[in-house]
Amino acid sequence: MTSSSIGIGLAGLGTVGSGVAQTLSENAELIAQRTGGISLHIARALVKNSGRAREIDINNDLIITDPDEFVNDPDVSIVVELIGGTSAAFDLVAASLRAGKPVVTGNKALLAERGEELFQLSRTHKAPIYFEAAVAGGIPIIKAVQESLVGNHIQSMTGIINGTSNYILERMTEGGLQYPEALAEAKELGYAEADETLDVNGWDAAHKAILLATLAYGFSIDPAQIYVRGIEMVRPIDINFAKELGYVIKLLCIVRQHENGAVEIRTQPSFIPQNHILASVNGVFNAVALKGDKLGDSLFYGRGAGQNPTASSAVADIIEAARGLRNADTSRGFLPYKDSGTLIPIDDTQTAYYVRFDVTDEPGVVAKIATVLADKGIGISGTHSPANPNDPDADFVDMVFRLHTCSFGLLRDTLLKIEELSCVNSRPVVFRIETL
Amino acid sequence: MTSSSIGIGLAGLGTVGSGVAQTLSENAELIAQRTGGISLHIARALVKNSGRAREIDINNDLIITDPDEFVNDPDVSIVVELIGGTSAAFDLVAASLRAGKPVVTGNKALLAERGEELFQLSRTHKAPIYFEAAVAGGIPIIKAVQESLVGNHIQSMTGIINGTSNYILERMTEGGLQYPEALAEAKELGYAEADETLDVNGWDAAHKAILLATLAYGFSIDPAQIYVRGIEMVRPIDINFAKELGYVIKLLCIVRQHENGAVEIRTQPSFIPQNHILASVNGVFNAVALKGDKLGDSLFYGRGAGQNPTASSAVADIIEAARGLRNADTSRGFLPYKDSGTLIPIDDTQTAYYVRFDVTDEPGVVAKIATVLADKGIGISGTHSPANPNDPDADFVDMVFRLHTCSFGLLRDTLLKIEELSCVNSRPVVFRIETL
Repeated sequence: MTSSSIGIGLAGLGTVGSGVAQTLSENAELIAQRTGGISLHIARALVKNSGRAREIDINNDLIITDPDEFVNDPDVSIVVELIGGTSAAFDLVAASLRAGKPVVTGNKALLAERGEELFQLSRTHKAPIYFEAAVAGGIPIIKAVQESLVGNHIQSMTGIINGTSNYILERMTEGGLQYPEALAEAKELGYAEADETLDVNGWDAAHKAILLATLAYGFSIDPAQIYVRGIEMVRPIDINFAKELGYVIKLLCIVRQHENGAVEIRTQPSFIPQNHILASVNGVFNAVALKGDKLGDSLFYGRGAGQNPTASSAVADIIEAARGLRNADTSRGFLPYKDSGTLIPIDDTQTAYYVRFDVTDEPGVVAKIATVLADKGIGISGTHSPANPNDPDADFVDMVFRLHTCSFGLLRDTLLKIEELSCVNSRPVVFRIETL
Repeated sequence: MTSSSIGIGLAGLGTVGSGVAQTLSENAELIAQRTGGISLHIARALVKNSGRAREIDINNDLIITDPDEFVNDPDVSIVVELIGGTSAAFDLVAASLRAGKPVVTGNKALLAERGEELFQLSRTHKAPIYFEAAVAGGIPIIKAVQESLVGNHIQSMTGIINGTSNYILERMTEGGLQYPEALAEAKELGYAEADETLDVNGWDAAHKAILLATLAYGFSIDPAQIYVRGIEMVRPIDINFAKELGYVIKLLCIVRQHENGAVEIRTQPSFIPQNHILASVNGVFNAVALKGDKLGDSLFYGRGAGQNPTASSAVADIIEAARGLRNADTSRGFLPYKDSGTLIPIDDTQTAYYVRFDVTDEPGVVAKIATVLADKGIGISGTHSPANPNDPDADFVDMVFRLHTCSFGLLRDTLLKIEELSCVNSRPVVFRIETL
């Protein structure tokens, strides 16, 4: 049961690319045993700068800088895209699909932003796209949704799928750090990129949520249509209030199908109950809680990033692609199977809320805010104002309201009214309270 | 991309069998969309007693009682074995494989006890065996190990994979119940079979551990070679001691590869740290913590039994089998890929221990036991003897020793010596303390 060796075109020799090359080489015998003799070799490696020192031992003759030469090399049977970004990566993936070559990618931004075009090329040229490495690093959530839950209507997926944000929030919660301190620490430890923007503004997680939703519901999703907020506005006072109230703050992606078939997708820092299993997902770990109509509740947990975990997923996909080539089976990669679907506008989504106001410390503030809320029909579960031990005579204080479930649109309108009150000094800070 | 409908032979119309029929029918459209047009129908249902009332709506003409007729029906392309047991089920699966028909089964006992023969038939007749439903119900742990971790050496798998035991232990821990009360409650709620033997004696979990180990390491494992203990000997006093010491008791399966390649497999109630993620797996839920050399730590959690979760896994396998038929790909099901491997004898495995002695309440008992332990070179981390508030003048008391890490063989020899002491009244009760 041996077959001749299959050539891999490895685009990108950065952290994950090097990890893939290493895994394929270190565990080659194991892979061959487990797959009935599939043998793989790096046929070409595409880099920007061929002169750069590499952390891995790779034959220099294999390294090239010309994408056309790379894609069209007859020994490249599977293209592995690990260069990142949505421009050069798009061109490379598109060219590979046009050449009929299956693609393995870890590029969530590329698929979330330009997946529709790429899946179309995949369909036309019968060249599958595999992307386990794009969501939650080493956790096999793509395969779980696509294959293991193939007989399930997926009711919801709730994910902690950005390790950087999760690390920062944990350090703020457990270590009492301010946001900038926690961010600096994450950078020092290599958990945050030099440019942390996409991690902390929620978009890295949102891209992954878009891919999960497309897998689960079959239609492409325009990123402009979904609601995304990051963790930059989380302050220690919110963390502490959350703790007092029995919650922790996590950057959550929520994907949920409503009874009418419409899909709710949003990413934001949220209050979740301290005793929920997702609350114990700490550090750079990721987790996705998944609910299917048949499966019920499940949870997938593991390392959401890093060289080896991500390489583990990419290698699993490479082997899927190789099996596909061996059996002339082009049906394995994912293709959207619906032309369109309905997203629920963020204003129509409902939860309870925590709202923090910066108010002038004077009598009647609670009454004024509560009156506006009452006028709009929003119930109050509690109000809290911490004593300020550092400055008992401060003119401005934080005042927190916990509000009953209402639509986000109603809340937004109401908060605009409240902002007009002279005792309210800045834009209120809102967190959703998720029941999960 | 439509294909003609594939006929399923469904053996067994019990809980899971009915769930499979229901899922295939309810979610047929979804399955067709997601798989590029795979359509499935129940071609035949095999039952013992054709006259029995069914909880599902199935055409009576399809129901037969003759296994030969069932297997050889030309419209049966995939055989789904959900009758249980290791005798009639063996004959049915063997006949199906001989007829070249792929088999989907949820029968852990069958594969653990007689897998070697069946995998051999599978290989000879190029008829794959799929068994996601055999381990951990709805949790896709088989696919994870076999496909997602194909590029990983699997370092360890630690599982809570018997929901009945887990429920009983949780009720003893949280509800303060005695073992017989908790068992009765589990039966009342339908969480335990009328004959609970295999659930509480550890063998149901051990069968699953054998399958996981065979998947991970490639060789068939003789059940007679592995160490299995159940939860029948767990007493409230042990639960309470565990709590005091910062542990909880769980029925654990441990599968672990040592550096020399030898594999440790054992199933027994164990002390695990209260703050470990596995400690929070409660009720009938299952979880497997899996460590790969590339993936690192991961956890898979979900419903380990029940009609719909198990059907969810069986349906995923049916669709794998259907894809295999569509692409003439017989390489998907699992086959052992090594003729043999080395198991670590239980006497050579090492952990710390909790040992409870029933001793005569007289001066010098601790010294006598401690002396034997010292002679054998086993270190003591602590000794405890609870005050007995009900009977301060009792002649017999429980005395607990926590022991440093040593081999199980050394511990066993030492305990035999201690049993000879006149102050020790019965066989000591041993729990391993796992560090995880």
